[in-house]
Amino acid sequence: MADSDTQRAILLLSCPDTRGIVAEVSYFITTYNGNILDSQQHSDPDTRTFFMRVEWDLAEFTIPAGKIASAFEPIAEKYAMDWRIEFSSRQHRMAIFVSQYDHCLYDLILRNREGETHADIRCVIGNHGKMQEIADIFDIPFYHMKVTKSNKAEVEKQQLDILEKEQIDVIVLARYMQILSDDFVSHYPNQIINIHHSFLPAFIGAKPYHQAYQRGVKIIGATSHYVTADLDEGPIIAQDVARISHRDSVKNLVARGRDLEKLVLTRAVKLHLEHRILPYGNKTVVFD
Amino acid sequence: MADSDTQRAILLLSCPDTRGIVAEVSYFITTYNGNILDSQQHSDPDTRTFFMRVEWDLAEFTIPAGKIASAFEPIAEKYAMDWRIEFSSRQHRMAIFVSQYDHCLYDLILRNREGETHADIRCVIGNHGKMQEIADIFDIPFYHMKVTKSNKAEVEKQQLDILEKEQIDVIVLARYMQILSDDFVSHYPNQIINIHHSFLPAFIGAKPYHQAYQRGVKIIGATSHYVTADLDEGPIIAQDVARISHRDSVKNLVARGRDLEKLVLTRAVKLHLEHRILPYGNKTVVFD
Amino acid sequence: MADSDTQRAILLLSCPDTRGIVAEVSYFITTYNGNILDSQQHSDPDTRTFFMRVEWDLAEFTIPAGKIASAFEPIAEKYAMDWRIEFSSRQHRMAIFVSQYDHCLYDLILRNREGETHADIRCVIGNHGKMQEIADIFDIPFYHMKVTKSNKAEVEKQQLDILEKEQIDVIVLARYMQILSDDFVSHYPNQIINIHHSFLPAFIGAKPYHQAYQRGVKIIGATSHYVTADLDEGPIIAQDVARISHRDSVKNLVARGRDLEKLVLTRAVKLHLEHRILPYGNKTVVFD
Amino acid sequence: MADSDTQRAILLLSCPDTRGIVAEVSYFITTYNGNILDSQQHSDPDTRTFFMRVEWDLAEFTIPAGKIASAFEPIAEKYAMDWRIEFSSRQHRMAIFVSQYDHCLYDLILRNREGETHADIRCVIGNHGKMQEIADIFDIPFYHMKVTKSNKAEVEKQQLDILEKEQIDVIVLARYMQILSDDFVSHYPNQIINIHHSFLPAFIGAKPYHQAYQRGVKIIGATSHYVTADLDEGPIIAQDVARISHRDSVKNLVARGRDLEKLVLTRAVKLHLEHRILPYGNKTVVFD
Repeated sequence: MADSDTQRAILLLSCPDTRGIVAEVSYFITTYNGNILDSQQHSDPDTRTFFMRVEWDLAEFTIPAGKIASAFEPIAEKYAMDWRIEFSSRQHRMAIFVSQYDHCLYDLILRNREGETHADIRCVIGNHGKMQEIADIFDIPFYHMKVTKSNKAEVEKQQLDILEKEQIDVIVLARYMQILSDDFVSHYPNQIINIHHSFLPAFIGAKPYHQAYQRGVKIIGATSHYVTADLDEGPIIAQDVARISHRDSVKNLVARGRDLEKLVLTRAVKLHLEHRILPYGNKTVVFD
Repeated sequence: MADSDTQRAILLLSCPDTRGIVAEVSYFITTYNGNILDSQQHSDPDTRTFFMRVEWDLAEFTIPAGKIASAFEPIAEKYAMDWRIEFSSRQHRMAIFVSQYDHCLYDLILRNREGETHADIRCVIGNHGKMQEIADIFDIPFYHMKVTKSNKAEVEKQQLDILEKEQIDVIVLARYMQILSDDFVSHYPNQIINIHHSFLPAFIGAKPYHQAYQRGVKIIGATSHYVTADLDEGPIIAQDVARISHRDSVKNLVARGRDLEKLVLTRAVKLHLEHRILPYGNKTVVFD
Repeated sequence: MADSDTQRAILLLSCPDTRGIVAEVSYFITTYNGNILDSQQHSDPDTRTFFMRVEWDLAEFTIPAGKIASAFEPIAEKYAMDWRIEFSSRQHRMAIFVSQYDHCLYDLILRNREGETHADIRCVIGNHGKMQEIADIFDIPFYHMKVTKSNKAEVEKQQLDILEKEQIDVIVLARYMQILSDDFVSHYPNQIINIHHSFLPAFIGAKPYHQAYQRGVKIIGATSHYVTADLDEGPIIAQDVARISHRDSVKNLVARGRDLEKLVLTRAVKLHLEHRILPYGNKTVVFD
Repeated sequence: MADSDTQRAILLLSCPDTRGIVAEVSYFITTYNGNILDSQQHSDPDTRTFFMRVEWDLAEFTIPAGKIASAFEPIAEKYAMDWRIEFSSRQHRMAIFVSQYDHCLYDLILRNREGETHADIRCVIGNHGKMQEIADIFDIPFYHMKVTKSNKAEVEKQQLDILEKEQIDVIVLARYMQILSDDFVSHYPNQIINIHHSFLPAFIGAKPYHQAYQRGVKIIGATSHYVTADLDEGPIIAQDVARISHRDSVKNLVARGRDLEKLVLTRAVKLHLEHRILPYGNKTVVFD
């Protein structure tokens, strides 16, 4: 992967698969003196859709960052692209939603401090007050917003206000035990990342470790996905598994699962922050 | 694991969990000059059931093999055990059921020839004729028994006749694409081992690789289980997984899956042949 | 694994392999009304050594904890056992040695707080001051003890004083970048756990990730082992690996390695704290 | 990966890293009506070397296959490329060298028959006669060529004659237990693929499973690499590992290892046949 201290542009696109796209895109970058650092592509044979991610060094690029989009526009139109340009210089503004478990929260914060991710963690929102202490240690604003059946719509409105005020562009549900309304989700399409503590589509819904224990599986898993209106049905970003045996109690599964959850959620968040994910339908193309 | 050239007895038992079982069983073996080679136990906290597998060297054991069961009977009764004694000297008599895929069939036969398993493969039964050639190479009798809706009951009757005549005690479904009737299954409880080409309970039923592809999972799996009346719901013996990406077509998943299927099925068969599996309810205790 | 809220005794032993040991040990426990919760054994065929770990519930055991050792002594002598008895009620007193990396330190502390391990972390000793901040957050005494060639013997003496004063019985080197003297090590045989950031015996010594990068391996690893007089040659407790590719820079290997180091060190520490490791020669029997 | 029934060209190149290569290569392909199916690149920061693999559909490509090389020559010269063009229509001509173990030989042959690889296996050369039987089953010519200290040079000469006569372009050492001379190796640079039964660079040389057992590692591995003049030091193509424990005898390690060896060797052979490996120095870039 590219070094982090040069300014880089990342172009993400999908369009009907046809001849000449790679050539035209790379020619565009080269013409204006950009040095391509990484270029990946994929063709989906079912939908005949073409996907591409290309990253280039802006050091000697002759178009100023603010004008690249308009310069590229004609090519995008020619191929009917769904596209965007990102810049490595822009830091994501992240909100983390939590309930009562701290392992994913700690992991996200510590890795960000270590420089493994480069987000600006603007706030932690908890439906319990328990995680306040951790947010305090790392000087991150904490909002305690209790959710009940009756106040859910109201709380979501307040949450949206905070997110808007903080100009949040990625929301991480770090074992947040509330279901977000379709309306809430529609404000942040493919910007809300959840960790589900099972190997989806196995054990959808509540208490997946209990379900896994009851079924007597020999492997458990964790799944990170974008949140959509359908519970646990959003596009999968990353999954991982661990071997278990008859000797593992539910309590052990929960402990083993914590490691999986941290690794998988971190991996998904990192891929998102580096603009390596292209969702399409309920699937993802991941250029890692 | 114990060396294969000494005569060994294997005692498998389950019973209500209470004090003194390990002591009494090991004392019994030692009293008659048996040398314990391996001893494993497990307590299921939900049902308060105790499970034990103990393996001992018969070289200087003073009770003849044929009389061990009756000598042990009083202990078994005292603790209300569900139990059996097996001997390493007895070779399992195996039947392999196949359809059109040869990878599991080859794998089972070759590993048995290499001495990795010690079964006596008595016959191959195929609902297609395609695998005849492989059975012929290795001089194993092959029965081509085409199954249709109308003749299914009749064919199963003929199959049961063959199995009985050959004194089969373990049936391996090596990608056999027919559903066995409840009646058939009831003749061989926990003696029919199937390989399902998904990470159960995900993607139960037909075409699991297609299902996995449609859902966009990042990991595929294979599951080996005992066959029960409920399709793909029997006690799981072994599972394994492999990472995939958006670049993998269904065809690739099928190819990747073949390796998983072979490894998982072989592992399950080996555990069964070595008397290392204690099924209970729809789960297994595996003393590996 | 056994529930943590009952009082339990754990007997660990090794001795020349002979008939009757399992029977005699389990009979001893049962006679005095102990309920065996877990029992594992192993025979090493090369040295004809027998290893056993047995764990039992003390709730109705009729010998008081303080007198179990002397009651068991005759059996131990009869079989020439190397043995010890541990109690689940006793908490290990741990010291953590660190240098400049914080990921293992955080991981050890957080998991202990979560109840995944049950140590009493008495102090953190650093040859740099950088980790003071973390120790402070969690209210653990921190000793900054800079080591140079000339003061090494003196510093080790001070460290031994602290360890003795704090009655430390397990030392975890959480990426401590100093080599301990043979004399120091001899005070804590099989009580010092190190994490080496390679898949030993590959890449012994300094900068293993650089070595791995230069060699072009496709998998990297981490190894946790007991510290002996021979650098990186002590008995291995746990190892794990991760896939890499030509695209991974040394910097990426270091980042990937951090996750391995945490998982492997934690695993080794947990096994040690639960008295599941029996070292012999430069190997370990791990009853997990 | 691309469908196998279209005619495709694969261009592999490496050259000093500079701006414009991707653009120029993809423009060349597009200009002549080629449809790029897959394109991957890599920059090595140490040596500032650029690597690229691009695969395109020849269906409507306007340059005939035989003239593509000369048409591309000017671009190759401009960037001082080390390059070659391959065609999916050309089948590799493979020789397999064996000694006394059959598992890798069976695996290579069966996967090729299943269509997982597309080689033309021209001959099997064994320094023992034991594998003749397997070669016969699958109608592959077998040469029994016993190697001793005194006849080694002579035998290698005969082997080279066979390889030349059969126009072999890839040699797979399927657990061939002889060391090839530098002279022999120099005839097939980066065309001889070996499987070493350890996780290199750990346990170089003879009896690696014995070495692993003695060292008490918790994971074993297998490594596939190109053969160079330095034993076990050639560029690594693929590696894999499996967990073991104190309970595994050397015999068990050998059995577990067989599965690893098959998987890793097959993977390396497949990558080679699909022109996905670019060796440089003692490393490889693998575009999988």
